[in-house]
Amino acid sequence: MRAFNVKPVDESLRPKIQTKIDNLNKPLGSMGELEKLAMQVCLVQHTLQPKLTHPCHILFGADHGIEREGVSIAPRDVTWQQMVNFARGGGGVNMLCRQHGFKLRIVDMGVDHDLSAVPGILPRKIAWGTRDFLHEPALTPEQMNQAINTGADIMEQCVSEGCNIVALGEMGIGNTSPSSLWMSEIGRVPLAECIGAGSGLGHQGVAHKLKVLTQAQALFHSTHSEPTVEEVMMYFGGFEMVAAVGAMLRAAESGCLILVDGFIMSACMLAASRLYPALLDYAIFGHVGDEAGHQRLLNLMQARPLLSLGMRLGEGTGALCSYPLVETSVRMINEMNNFQNAHIDKYF
Amino acid sequence: MRAFNVKPVDESLRPKIQTKIDNLNKPLGSMGELEKLAMQVCLVQHTLQPKLTHPCHILFGADHGIEREGVSIAPRDVTWQQMVNFARGGGGVNMLCRQHGFKLRIVDMGVDHDLSAVPGILPRKIAWGTRDFLHEPALTPEQMNQAINTGADIMEQCVSEGCNIVALGEMGIGNTSPSSLWMSEIGRVPLAECIGAGSGLGHQGVAHKLKVLTQAQALFHSTHSEPTVEEVMMYFGGFEMVAAVGAMLRAAESGCLILVDGFIMSACMLAASRLYPALLDYAIFGHVGDEAGHQRLLNLMQARPLLSLGMRLGEGTGALCSYPLVETSVRMINEMNNFQNAHIDKYF
Repeated sequence: MRAFNVKPVDESLRPKIQTKIDNLNKPLGSMGELEKLAMQVCLVQHTLQPKLTHPCHILFGADHGIEREGVSIAPRDVTWQQMVNFARGGGGVNMLCRQHGFKLRIVDMGVDHDLSAVPGILPRKIAWGTRDFLHEPALTPEQMNQAINTGADIMEQCVSEGCNIVALGEMGIGNTSPSSLWMSEIGRVPLAECIGAGSGLGHQGVAHKLKVLTQAQALFHSTHSEPTVEEVMMYFGGFEMVAAVGAMLRAAESGCLILVDGFIMSACMLAASRLYPALLDYAIFGHVGDEAGHQRLLNLMQARPLLSLGMRLGEGTGALCSYPLVETSVRMINEMNNFQNAHIDKYF
Repeated sequence: MRAFNVKPVDESLRPKIQTKIDNLNKPLGSMGELEKLAMQVCLVQHTLQPKLTHPCHILFGADHGIEREGVSIAPRDVTWQQMVNFARGGGGVNMLCRQHGFKLRIVDMGVDHDLSAVPGILPRKIAWGTRDFLHEPALTPEQMNQAINTGADIMEQCVSEGCNIVALGEMGIGNTSPSSLWMSEIGRVPLAECIGAGSGLGHQGVAHKLKVLTQAQALFHSTHSEPTVEEVMMYFGGFEMVAAVGAMLRAAESGCLILVDGFIMSACMLAASRLYPALLDYAIFGHVGDEAGHQRLLNLMQARPLLSLGMRLGEGTGALCSYPLVETSVRMINEMNNFQNAHIDKYF
């Protein structure tokens, strides 16, 4: 896997930014999390006058071999059907991109269906789904590199158009399964605490999912006693998740803010930030979702998500929902008057 | 106090709305709180195609006699200084109104300063601040009626311009004190559990505030053994809070959604909804703030706030921050495709 140049943010402006925030005409600290967000945006952009430009949303789609083991309530075909639906503008991700002015890129990283004739889907298919990690590694090393590079390249295109904030999302029936394994392996959390209902499994379904994934994890351990993050990513996949890791790392390399979505994208952020810890400087956690284990996954990164609305749709919808709060934090530091200019008695 | 005609929403469309939400192309229930919000908006508007039109924000400002007892860290003058600042566009409320397209009305209900020459402030001054409820009732019955009617009239103007969603906010140094007393009296919660730091009191300041308010409450009880909601409102004030109650009731009467802000506006919603319980059908709780007691106050109304960001600015900022989520819920039910149209296998 290629190297990325992810630098920690330059902290030198922190005192000046804090002074500016503290002098806005409001009780000290009274904008709560939005003040911390303003600080982060200023630090990433190394300025006291931050700006959000050309927000982009990248949605990576792919299928998963593990889906064949009955780990999801939704059938595999829903992946390509939803990709077509997104290309036509009818998905949750679409209405949110319209609402918040995000340019949407839909990327076929490895959907098990021919989408080449569908306008609006970028054809980057690596294979027609990953292999089944119950029996073998989901990705080959070549596929792994291809997925990382594709994610990075598409992010690069966004940056070249002037994007400085990106949201990432995914579509891939079955992809809470590899996410749970990434979380369990990389975060050293017992698998049972990483597994949830996905798109709607009942108790029995969750029990079956745990059985299948436990077996897969045992097989993995039989050949990998001390696996690296990259080995975990490659073994369990999927293409859309590895691409998201590439996009995250390239975004940070370019000084771009990253809006992190739900369980799957949080697993990607965990992996990517274990490879490059400075990545977290650029990450804004949009929401904590309804998938069991998501809060615990966020805790592994000391992440404080902006929203908690019981959502579990994926596609990047939770990340997009949080965007207006980032905008508010930017407006706050740029547009709110300070005590002196507003001729207000400073009372602290 | 005049009567309001606040009707419970017509529940007859509920099954049809639920069916529509359940057939959108997403896992069942996966938009979490946004699905409940969409249901509420549809019920209030009695339609399966809801619409948000001409959003308005009304900010009521007034001063409080109780401020003379040192219950706030901020001096009284900050009320009028902030009102001027809002009129010039430099406050937290202003940037949020710009961001979310709200028309802002700033109303002087009883600020202790001559604001009549300030463009952009509606002159509705009832008095130069309320009287000090440590010694006497804050409002007279005439003032109470005037405040209710003024709030209702200004809301009426919004409605006549086509507004069907309103956010309400306040400015009034000292107004967490009457809010705590409303909560304690109306919600039957011990006063100590209703009191917090306001705009930034330390431990000593909070202790002093509790002492003063305990004394005021004792005096009130000496003349009111079983006070009505209206008596509580009148005795403790203030003008901006009573006006907000009038605005809330008039909004509901007109079938208008109400975005509820932090501690003070939640106290107003509590009072108003005890007078007219159906009012809660129209209330969307924007956030739970950082003021001690706010969560408990929300619990009294079984309210589930949309945001929890540690904010305690007032002005209506927490309510306004939640607006994009209401918009998303409306887009969801109007713009998301359903399983059938999108040709997606329905899997539940």
